[in-house]
Amino acid sequence: RILRIPYATDRDFPPFDRVTMDGIAINYQAFANGERAYLIEGICPAGSPQLELKDTNNCLEVMTGAVLPRGCDTVIRYEDLVIESNVATIQVDHVKEAQNVHFKGSDLKKDSTVLKQGERISPAHIGILSSIGAHYVNVSKLPKVIIASTGDELVNVNETPLAHQIRRSNVHTIQNILVQKHIPSDECHLPDSRDKLREQLAGILNSYDVLILSGAVSKGKFDFVPEILEELQVKKHFHRVAQRPGKPFWFGESQNTVVFALPGNPASSFMCTHQYVIPWIEKSLERAHWNKKEYAILSQDVYFKPALDYFLEVELTVSDKGNLLMTPRKGNGSGDLINLAKADALVHLPSHKNEFKEGESYPIIRVR
Amino acid sequence: RILRIPYATDRDFPPFDRVTMDGIAINYQAFANGERAYLIEGICPAGSPQLELKDTNNCLEVMTGAVLPRGCDTVIRYEDLVIESNVATIQVDHVKEAQNVHFKGSDLKKDSTVLKQGERISPAHIGILSSIGAHYVNVSKLPKVIIASTGDELVNVNETPLAHQIRRSNVHTIQNILVQKHIPSDECHLPDSRDKLREQLAGILNSYDVLILSGAVSKGKFDFVPEILEELQVKKHFHRVAQRPGKPFWFGESQNTVVFALPGNPASSFMCTHQYVIPWIEKSLERAHWNKKEYAILSQDVYFKPALDYFLEVELTVSDKGNLLMTPRKGNGSGDLINLAKADALVHLPSHKNEFKEGESYPIIRVR
Repeated sequence: RILRIPYATDRDFPPFDRVTMDGIAINYQAFANGERAYLIEGICPAGSPQLELKDTNNCLEVMTGAVLPRGCDTVIRYEDLVIESNVATIQVDHVKEAQNVHFKGSDLKKDSTVLKQGERISPAHIGILSSIGAHYVNVSKLPKVIIASTGDELVNVNETPLAHQIRRSNVHTIQNILVQKHIPSDECHLPDSRDKLREQLAGILNSYDVLILSGAVSKGKFDFVPEILEELQVKKHFHRVAQRPGKPFWFGESQNTVVFALPGNPASSFMCTHQYVIPWIEKSLERAHWNKKEYAILSQDVYFKPALDYFLEVELTVSDKGNLLMTPRKGNGSGDLINLAKADALVHLPSHKNEFKEGESYPIIRVR
Repeated sequence: RILRIPYATDRDFPPFDRVTMDGIAINYQAFANGERAYLIEGICPAGSPQLELKDTNNCLEVMTGAVLPRGCDTVIRYEDLVIESNVATIQVDHVKEAQNVHFKGSDLKKDSTVLKQGERISPAHIGILSSIGAHYVNVSKLPKVIIASTGDELVNVNETPLAHQIRRSNVHTIQNILVQKHIPSDECHLPDSRDKLREQLAGILNSYDVLILSGAVSKGKFDFVPEILEELQVKKHFHRVAQRPGKPFWFGESQNTVVFALPGNPASSFMCTHQYVIPWIEKSLERAHWNKKEYAILSQDVYFKPALDYFLEVELTVSDKGNLLMTPRKGNGSGDLINLAKADALVHLPSHKNEFKEGESYPIIRVR
C-alpha cells in the first residue's frame, strides 16, 4: 500500500537512554579516577522504571533494552567483567565514555517526519509505523478492478477444449501480475454476442473503477467491443499504438471507469499490462517515483526494422561486477505464451532506431 | 509458490493453425498464379470448427484466433484489402506465403516439458498452467510459521508506552518481510517469566514448523530462552555468529520445529531474517537457485575494522548505463530502526578485509 500522508515520531527515537549490552552501568568519572571494582547496588531489567545509582563508585547491573539508571553514563558488558561476592571487576584497560548506550533522541527527535507521503510501505516502514503507534495507517484506496476475457474460442481451465478451442489463460496471467503488486481483482468472461456483451459491459461500468479487457479490439467482424464501449459513453482516448507487440491497444474512460482494452495475444496483453495498466494504477495511487526507470545492458546486437517501439523479451543476469546484463529471448510472435515464461524483463527499444548494439543500455520493465 | 513437479504440454502449442490477423485466408498458389480478386465463400469466427475452402481461387473471411480453413495457407489482413460485392481485392504487391498464421506446434509440441520443478510460479507460468489445464498445481507446502517477541519493556502498537517502555515493532517487521515473499505467519508475545515462557514455548513447539524468536538470546539475567529451549529438547546448532549486526543469533531445531532466535535489536532481527530465515525457507521449499547472488558496486570507500562479517545498509541506484551502484547509509547502531527505512539492500562485506574500495562489487540482499 502507498502512504497517503506523512508520519512523524510521537517520541524521541530512542525514547530513553537505552542500554544496548547486558552488563553493568557505571559513572565514567569513577573509571577515569582509577576505580575498577564496583559494588553492585541492584539490577535493572528491561521494562522496569528508571533506577538511580546511589554511590557513584558503585554500579547497577543492566539488561539490554533497560533504561540507563540516573547517575550512570557508561555500560561495561559482562564479557569484560568478573563478578564475585556482589562486586564487578573490570578486566579491560580501555573503556570509552558513554559506550553501549543508545542515547535518547540520538536517532531522531520527537515530531520529526519519518515517513513521506507517496512511499510504498516496506517491512522497515511497518517497524517504524508500529513504533510510533500508527495502528491505523492512512493509505491510498485500491481501485476495484475487473479483468474480462472475450472470444468464443475460449473454455475454462478445468474444461477439455475441442480441436478449435483453447483454454482461458490471459485473464489469469493479468490477475497474477496484479497479485504480485498486491492488487486484488475480479475476473469474468464476456460472450461474443453483441446484446449480451453490451448488457454485461454496462453492469461492469456501474461497479468497477478499472476494466481490463483481453481481446476483441482488432478489426474482426465480431470485435464489437470498441463500438459498444462508445455506445455506453466510454470516451475513447486512443486506439492503436505504434508498438510491437500490442499494436491494437485501446484506451478510454467513462464517468467512473477507466478501460484498458488489450489485444488478445498472450505476449500483447502481458506487455500492455506491465507497460500501461500497472503504471496507471501506481500513479493513481499517488506512489512517489512511480515512473522511475531501470536500465540494463544488451549482451548482443538486436536489429528491428519496423518503425515501432519494440518490447523485446530478455533474460537478466547481474554480473559479479555489478552490471545488469540482458540477453534477448525473442519468441515466436505475440501468440507465443511459452516464451514469456523465460523472460525476466521486457526491454523497451525506441522506434527511431533499427540497430541496438551490444553494450548499449535501454530501459527495462521487470516481469517477475 | 514453488512448483514441486515439472509440467508438460497436453497439446501442441498452438493446438491448431491459428489465424493471427483479421482478414481473408487464401491458397498462396492462387496469388502466385496472379489472382488478386477473391470471391468470399464464407466467414470463420474464432471458436468455430474448421471450415474448408471449396475453390482454391476463392477465399474465406477469417478472424484472429480462428482455425485456418482447410485448403488455405496464407492470411491477408483487412488493411491490405478492398471488399466490394462479396469480392476481396488485394491492394498490395507483396504477400508472403504462410503469413499471419501461427502454425500448429510451432512454439512447442505436445508432451514437451514446459515448466521445471523448483521454479517459483510467475505470472507467465500462470498463463501456461492455465493453457495446459493444470487447474490444481502441485506446489511445495508452506511451513507453519510463528514469530514471537520477548521483553517486558514491550507494549502493543495500539497502547501508549510508559517512559521506560516501547511498542512492539520487530514482530511486525519480520511478519511483513515474510508477507512480501507470500509466506503467511502467526505472531505472539512471550513473557519474561521463566515458567510461563516454558509453557508457551512447549505449546508452540507442538504446533509450528518454524519459530522465529525476537530478543532474549544475549547474556542478560532474564534471557532464559536458550536454556529453556534446550530443556524442551530443542538441539542447539550454534549460538553467536561473527557478524555485525546480529552477533547473538541462536539457531537450533527440535523433532518438528526449526528455531531461529534472533537478537532483539531492530537492525539485527531485520538482517537475520533476510540472511538466514528467508533462505532457509526457500531452500526447504526446494526452490531452484534459492542461493543465487546479486552484486552491486560501492560508490564510496568503506572502512570496517572488526574481524566480523559486516552487513551494511545501502541505497541502490541503477545508472542509465546499467550499473547497479550502492551508497552506504550507515545507521546509528543496531538499535536504529529509522535508518533501516532508507535501505534498499544490505551489502555483505566479508570479515577477512577491512577496506572496501569505491568501484569494488560485493553481494547484496534486497530488503524492499
